[in-house]
Amino acid sequence: MASKVYLALLHYPVYNKREEIITTSITNLDIHDIARSARTYGIERLFFIHPAEAQQRLAQDILAYWQHGYGSTYNMDRKEALSVVQLTNTLQDAVGEIREANGKPPVIVTTDARIFPNTVSYSDLRREMENADRPYLVLFGTGWGIERELMQSFDYILEPIVGRGDYNHLSVRAAAAIILDRLLGGKWW
Amino acid sequence: MASKVYLALLHYPVYNKREEIITTSITNLDIHDIARSARTYGIERLFFIHPAEAQQRLAQDILAYWQHGYGSTYNMDRKEALSVVQLTNTLQDAVGEIREANGKPPVIVTTDARIFPNTVSYSDLRREMENADRPYLVLFGTGWGIERELMQSFDYILEPIVGRGDYNHLSVRAAAAIILDRLLGGKWW
Repeated sequence: MASKVYLALLHYPVYNKREEIITTSITNLDIHDIARSARTYGIERLFFIHPAEAQQRLAQDILAYWQHGYGSTYNMDRKEALSVVQLTNTLQDAVGEIREANGKPPVIVTTDARIFPNTVSYSDLRREMENADRPYLVLFGTGWGIERELMQSFDYILEPIVGRGDYNHLSVRAAAAIILDRLLGGKWW
Repeated sequence: MASKVYLALLHYPVYNKREEIITTSITNLDIHDIARSARTYGIERLFFIHPAEAQQRLAQDILAYWQHGYGSTYNMDRKEALSVVQLTNTLQDAVGEIREANGKPPVIVTTDARIFPNTVSYSDLRREMENADRPYLVLFGTGWGIERELMQSFDYILEPIVGRGDYNHLSVRAAAAIILDRLLGGKWW
């Protein structure tokens, strides 16, 4: 019995380049790309977490176009992918939704370029997810990363993705796809 | 000794939704996302293959901004990623460049949702790449897939990516990231 897995993209509180705390924008492309990856890997819900009402309205308009507007008949696959998307104001709201749906709160997992005491390997987390009877929330930061104090409240930090060489600046869309494949993909190796 | 690996995104000849042969547009986001993934996984060059001069000029303007314009000082990591990008008119041109750089033509690999006589598994191709003394070109189609006759000229077709369930409509950006990770990523399993 595989665990239920949720994804979230966090737009606040995150750092900008100068380590100031900012709110980033929701982008059309993050919604589409990450929803398609989420749907492919059987994710329950994909939350976009943003405190500003105007940003939520914008995202809602995009979703409505593909869910009920012309897009819904033009591309049914896209409609299906976007059906997993949900907008919330705060991380607490997303956690609350997951708790309500499962009767228990999620194990929260995020990623970072650095190693922490609670850093977990992909193989260990994959094995745990295959056997645990708890929901998981895999959380992605935007901008230059999630605010430090909040980071420390999470259960696990996934180890950095290593490619070939020491350059590692994947887009959040690429990182999300790779992490879903490592944690939930069919065994190919 | 690991093989030299090249990537290419093919914008012509590909199908549209109605199975007509079309030319798709180069998008700003494909350039950025796939270049960042390519650089992370040690790809030699990432070719964007497009026959139209106007599209190549547009892509060249984007590259110039990040290579020499304001973008080059604003984000050095992006400058480095985009340094792997090259524009060519045809697939033959890209193959010619690779042959010239290596003294032999590349093994051409692509992906498809269906199984072919020359379908190869990720683990077999990964092992072959680790040991072979030949360059490889991993080619991604755009639109609704690469024209059928051209498909048949390639050496290998990678097996479809399986997630959880039967939905599989990843973006080319997500598919490229996952395929690079499976073929060239550090061993995590």
